[in-house]
Amino acid sequence: MGFFEDLHDRIVSVDSVVCVGLDPDPGRLPVAVREAELPRWAFNRRIIDKTAPYAAAFKPNVAFYEDPAGWRALGETIAYAAGKGIPVILDAKRADIGNTARRYARLLDGETYGVKADAPNAITVNPYLGEDALQPFLDLDDRGVFVLCRTSNAGGEDLQDLELDSGERVYERVADLAVQWNRRNNVGLVVGATATDELATIRERAPSLPFLVPGVGAQGGDAEAAVTHGVVDGVGLVNASRSIIFAGETTETPFDEAAGAAARRLRDGLNRFR
Amino acid sequence: MGFFEDLHDRIVSVDSVVCVGLDPDPGRLPVAVREAELPRWAFNRRIIDKTAPYAAAFKPNVAFYEDPAGWRALGETIAYAAGKGIPVILDAKRADIGNTARRYARLLDGETYGVKADAPNAITVNPYLGEDALQPFLDLDDRGVFVLCRTSNAGGEDLQDLELDSGERVYERVADLAVQWNRRNNVGLVVGATATDELATIRERAPSLPFLVPGVGAQGGDAEAAVTHGVVDGVGLVNASRSIIFAGETTETPFDEAAGAAARRLRDGLNRFR
Repeated sequence: MGFFEDLHDRIVSVDSVVCVGLDPDPGRLPVAVREAELPRWAFNRRIIDKTAPYAAAFKPNVAFYEDPAGWRALGETIAYAAGKGIPVILDAKRADIGNTARRYARLLDGETYGVKADAPNAITVNPYLGEDALQPFLDLDDRGVFVLCRTSNAGGEDLQDLELDSGERVYERVADLAVQWNRRNNVGLVVGATATDELATIRERAPSLPFLVPGVGAQGGDAEAAVTHGVVDGVGLVNASRSIIFAGETTETPFDEAAGAAARRLRDGLNRFR
Repeated sequence: MGFFEDLHDRIVSVDSVVCVGLDPDPGRLPVAVREAELPRWAFNRRIIDKTAPYAAAFKPNVAFYEDPAGWRALGETIAYAAGKGIPVILDAKRADIGNTARRYARLLDGETYGVKADAPNAITVNPYLGEDALQPFLDLDDRGVFVLCRTSNAGGEDLQDLELDSGERVYERVADLAVQWNRRNNVGLVVGATATDELATIRERAPSLPFLVPGVGAQGGDAEAAVTHGVVDGVGLVNASRSIIFAGETTETPFDEAAGAAARRLRDGLNRFR
C-alpha cells in the first residue's frame, strides 16, 4: 500500500486529520521528563500516548533531534508511533544533489537512527534544487513526499510569491511541478494555513494532491480554509506542534493530559469543516 | 574577525582557493579505515592531514553524518580542522521557520556534535523560505552564510531559471536578496561551476559577495569560470569532493596521499586563473 492509502485508513479510523508536530524543544521540556536518559524521547512517548486517539499522524521536525542523543530519541519516537500503527512524517525539508540526495534518502531508512527502528513513512522536502534533487525520495513507492509549496512564515513571500513572466507565482509553478513529479501517487504539498488565498489557488492547480497544512496552532492560521482546501478525497493533514505539545505550560494539568485535550479540541474543531 | 576575513587570511597563507568536500560515503571508504571505531572520522582525519597544505577550507556535507555515530564523526572532524586553523563550512542547505530555524542554528554550536568540538565557521542555506527562515544564521556576526543561488545539478533549472515578470531569473532575484541580507558582511553565494553563464551574471548582480563554487571535480564544471567569477577581493572557494577524497580508488597510492596529490593538482590548476 502507498503512504496516502495508509494515511486515508488512519484518518478514517480516528476520524481526525490532526497531525501532531513532535518538536521537543529542550528548553521547554517539563520537569517531569528532564531527568530521563533521553528526555526528548520520554517527552514524546507520553505525548504520543495521550494524543494518539486524536492523531492521524505524527510529525517530528528533525531540527529538534540533530545531535547524537537526538538521533536516538528520534529513532525511538518513530518506532513507538509505528508500533501503534500511526504514520510518521519526518519534517526534514531536505534537498541536495546527486550522491548527496541519495544519502539524504536514508532518512527514510530505519537503520539511520541507530536503533531497530521502523522507518518514517513520509518526509518533507524543499523544491529549490529541482526534481533530480528529490528523485531518491520520489522513487520510493511506499513513502510520502511532501513538497514545500507556500510556507506559513512571513518570508514565504520573498521567493514563493514572485510573479513569473507567465503571470503565475513561483509557488503555483511549484504546485505544477509537484503534479508532474507525482508519478507514483506519493506526492503531497506543504501549504501554510496562514496563506488562506494561496490554499485555494494551489488546490485548483493540484486538484488531487493531499496537503500538509501547518500554522493553525501557535501561528494562528485559518482552520476552515486548512480543512476545506487541504483535504482531498478524505486525505490531508492539519498540523499543530507547540499548541498541542506544550499545552500544559499554562495549566495545572499534567503535560501529557493537557496535550491530549488540546489534540482532541483541534480534532473536534477541524471536524466541523470536514 | 568575520568569517570572510579569516577565510581571506587562510587563502593567502596557503595560496589556494580549494575547498575540500568531506563527504565520506560509507560504501566507498577504503579498507584501511573500515575497522576503525568511527570509520568516517578515521577517513576524514587522514584526508585532512594530507590535503591541508592545499586547502583553504573543508566542507563536510551533513547528509553523510546523519546518524548517531555520524554526529560524533562530524564533531571530531570539525574540531580537528579547527585545531589546524582551517575554516569549516557545514554543507547543510537548511532552512526552516520560526523556532525551528533557531534550533537549526545550533548546527553552528559546537555542543551539537556531542564532543568538545569547535563550531563550524560557516553554513550553506536554502533560500526558498525567505529571509526570516535564515535570520538565526544571518544574525551571527562571526560566521559565514552561503545562500544557494544557482546549483550545479540539472534540476537547478526547474525553479532557479524561471523567468520573472521583470525579465530576471529566479536565481538573479536570489542574488539580489542575498545582497540585501548581507547586513553583517557574512553572506556568500553557492553557484555551480556547471552554470558558466550564470556565474558571470550572478557576479554582476552581487559584485562583492564571495562565491562557493561546487561542481569542478566529478561534475566536470568550468574551473576558469569558477575562479574568474567566484573569487572577489581575493575571497572565494572552489569545491571538489569525490574527485579529491576518493582519488585513491583508481591508483595504487594510499588513499590519503592520492587525495593530497589531487588537492595539490586542483590548487595548481585553479591558481593559473587567479
